[in-house]
Amino acid sequence: MSYFDAASAAPLHPVARQALHASLDEGWADPARLYKEGRRARLLLDAAREAAAEAVGCRPDELSFTASGTRAVHTGVAGALAGRRRAGRHLIVSAVEHSSVLHSAEAHEAEGGTVTQVPVGRAGRVTAASYAQALRPDTALACLQSANHEVGTGQPVAEVAEVCRAAGVPLLVDAAQSLGWGPVDGDWSLLTASAHKWGGPSGVGLLVVRKGVRFAVRGPVDERESGRVAGFENIPAIVAAAASLRAVRAEAAAEAVRLRELTERIRTRVPRLVPDVEVVGDPVHRLPGIVTFSCLYVDGEALLHELDREGFSVSSGSSCTSSTLTPSHVLKAMGVLSEGNVRVSLPPGTPEEDVERFLEVLPGTVAQVREKLGAPSAPAARVRQEELVVDSLGKRCPIPVIELAKVFGEVPVGGTVRVLSDDEAARLDIPAWCEMRGQEYLGEEPADRGTAYLIRRVS
Amino acid sequence: MSYFDAASAAPLHPVARQALHASLDEGWADPARLYKEGRRARLLLDAAREAAAEAVGCRPDELSFTASGTRAVHTGVAGALAGRRRAGRHLIVSAVEHSSVLHSAEAHEAEGGTVTQVPVGRAGRVTAASYAQALRPDTALACLQSANHEVGTGQPVAEVAEVCRAAGVPLLVDAAQSLGWGPVDGDWSLLTASAHKWGGPSGVGLLVVRKGVRFAVRGPVDERESGRVAGFENIPAIVAAAASLRAVRAEAAAEAVRLRELTERIRTRVPRLVPDVEVVGDPVHRLPGIVTFSCLYVDGEALLHELDREGFSVSSGSSCTSSTLTPSHVLKAMGVLSEGNVRVSLPPGTPEEDVERFLEVLPGTVAQVREKLGAPSAPAARVRQEELVVDSLGKRCPIPVIELAKVFGEVPVGGTVRVLSDDEAARLDIPAWCEMRGQEYLGEEPADRGTAYLIRRVS
Repeated sequence: MSYFDAASAAPLHPVARQALHASLDEGWADPARLYKEGRRARLLLDAAREAAAEAVGCRPDELSFTASGTRAVHTGVAGALAGRRRAGRHLIVSAVEHSSVLHSAEAHEAEGGTVTQVPVGRAGRVTAASYAQALRPDTALACLQSANHEVGTGQPVAEVAEVCRAAGVPLLVDAAQSLGWGPVDGDWSLLTASAHKWGGPSGVGLLVVRKGVRFAVRGPVDERESGRVAGFENIPAIVAAAASLRAVRAEAAAEAVRLRELTERIRTRVPRLVPDVEVVGDPVHRLPGIVTFSCLYVDGEALLHELDREGFSVSSGSSCTSSTLTPSHVLKAMGVLSEGNVRVSLPPGTPEEDVERFLEVLPGTVAQVREKLGAPSAPAARVRQEELVVDSLGKRCPIPVIELAKVFGEVPVGGTVRVLSDDEAARLDIPAWCEMRGQEYLGEEPADRGTAYLIRRVS
Repeated sequence: MSYFDAASAAPLHPVARQALHASLDEGWADPARLYKEGRRARLLLDAAREAAAEAVGCRPDELSFTASGTRAVHTGVAGALAGRRRAGRHLIVSAVEHSSVLHSAEAHEAEGGTVTQVPVGRAGRVTAASYAQALRPDTALACLQSANHEVGTGQPVAEVAEVCRAAGVPLLVDAAQSLGWGPVDGDWSLLTASAHKWGGPSGVGLLVVRKGVRFAVRGPVDERESGRVAGFENIPAIVAAAASLRAVRAEAAAEAVRLRELTERIRTRVPRLVPDVEVVGDPVHRLPGIVTFSCLYVDGEALLHELDREGFSVSSGSSCTSSTLTPSHVLKAMGVLSEGNVRVSLPPGTPEEDVERFLEVLPGTVAQVREKLGAPSAPAARVRQEELVVDSLGKRCPIPVIELAKVFGEVPVGGTVRVLSDDEAARLDIPAWCEMRGQEYLGEEPADRGTAYLIRRVS
């Protein structure tokens, strides 16, 4: 088995396992107690906090342990917004943040706050200028991930932090994907992370609030974790998280070079090996271990299933692999193809052979999925005035794009095709197909049922 | 070492350790993923949920795993209140609930809700009648622990649940202290618990919401745990929690008999072995492993320190062992002596010899602490009118009571003593001393500095 979904959860690092085992015996008692077992637990907790703070580049008393990265984000965003309530209730997030940030933003809106989503370019990267533009006198907080979880694009955190600092607005950085690789540069105010992304155990997140940042915890609290995170500390897991962070950091520089080379192979060779593929994400500003591509005319769920049978565990932002039947908000915000989407995220230590075998297996697997979809019932195409109409109503991704492609040859240069579709993914994938094929996308308009997408053949 | 603080945290059960080790290999991946590792994690999570639900006596889809018992309470109280917002904003809690419930109540009040605290008798037990009296047309939720964490008193949950049910008000039961011993009787609506109280790992709580109970999660959520608990599930810990719950339940009936006999020894023999001791908590309705007593003229922190040196880890509700310098709210609500307070809570498997050794060591330890305190500077006593005045201003528990006791012999029967004190514990401990000595407590009144406590000698 080759597990290529480290961006979702990494298997436990050997150091984490060792530390966990050791501290199950030493760290189970209440660290607030004064007896022997309590004092031992307290020592372990303090040492773990110091180690984690050193890796983050903050003071130990600025760092609280939470129950997950998601909890760290929820607590951090809510606390920073409440602490700056007097400044205003405007929140800035990028359009490609992790769902935990976007859910926090939704909750803020539901309570009467306002939210601005900063757009990204086709590579998934924001600009400091767009944050500067989004800042308002009533902005309480801005959020930006250090790197994207779906496409690996690194964000210009230091520049955005500078822009925010100049405006007196704190910046919260979700560093979930990058903290294992190194500290986050720049003058940020709050930082969140998740241990199981770097090979630590589940059940541990980090919330860092810099001294001087206004912060007011929402809801009930107790005396634990500087009053920021209520409930008994999970010390064995915390110890394991801190120990593994230190361990992955020690290997990070060398491993980053190695994984970057392996993902570069995928970036370069997949488009050569598989026709009609779009590699997405920034080719330069990117995490070492993540590479994401989309395959035209491919059903994402079927592809994942076939890759799983071949022994590869990957994830996908395709609509047909999600419960909501909409493509990932990240791919949407980037405006790239979402059908047949595959995210490969290599855990540290991934052998070169596994990547080579993936590159061997992929072309056949994609071809097989395409073949299964390749003989759909002949598209209901008919000429209406000077226009070819493809009725894909009731059909799901990637069928509408396949039907478009099938009839496109019948259209004279200068002619147009109107695709009728009620599948949400078509809104993203039809323009993306035009971009890939060098054809002109004319836009969409409401139809009797669903939406009509208009494409002009230019070559 | 004898660890006698199981009510705070129990050491990891061997079954929990085994299950944790096994599921670290199988349960680290994202259970929402469709590939092999994700499916394995999902199977483990589902099986753990079924086992935990069976132990609670609920449906698996009524049970969510949280990051701690405290988080379960915070989420449960907030969600139940929000779900019943239309009924009103009145919350009922007992005066002796765990701090997580009382903190939730404070947060509710801070948001404009109202809270009624139901009082307890001297044994720490509520009555169904007092809940009935507290219920109002705008009551949204009532909370009652299954058993008290400081004195072990069991509460009449089934009767209170009936009273609440009749009024159409949901009852949330904090079962943290009792779930390892058995399911909670009665027709409750919500239930919370904490795995590390029954020998499971830290980092796992349970929140049960019965079908049909209105519940609206506050704040940001995601798709995990029925939308009730956001963030990546800590599956290895959850598996270990469920496995150890099953294991302790299998041993519960026999172990309850054994521990009950051991705590009964302490209940009976401590008052015989140590002069001036009050055993607190209900002698009949009580948890098997908890016994709590208070020693007059003893500094709780010094006593805990001496017991720790002798190898006994116990906890205390005395004011001088807390960071707030106030006695535990539970002892306060019961109106019992708080000075020199000791809670012994035996983990399952505690050897008889350890309890016997505790009973051997305790009298000497208490005597030693009393001796150290026994020669304080002679109390500044002078007769004012027909009254003896003891100026204990600036002195901390247990000095005011010691000074009172020292001069009491000089007071003629019928005469009164006025103790001046600015120590919060005196408000509890002076009336408790009167109760123990059969003297008349006349009440308190404000003094120039601190408070004057008036005592009449009646024998």
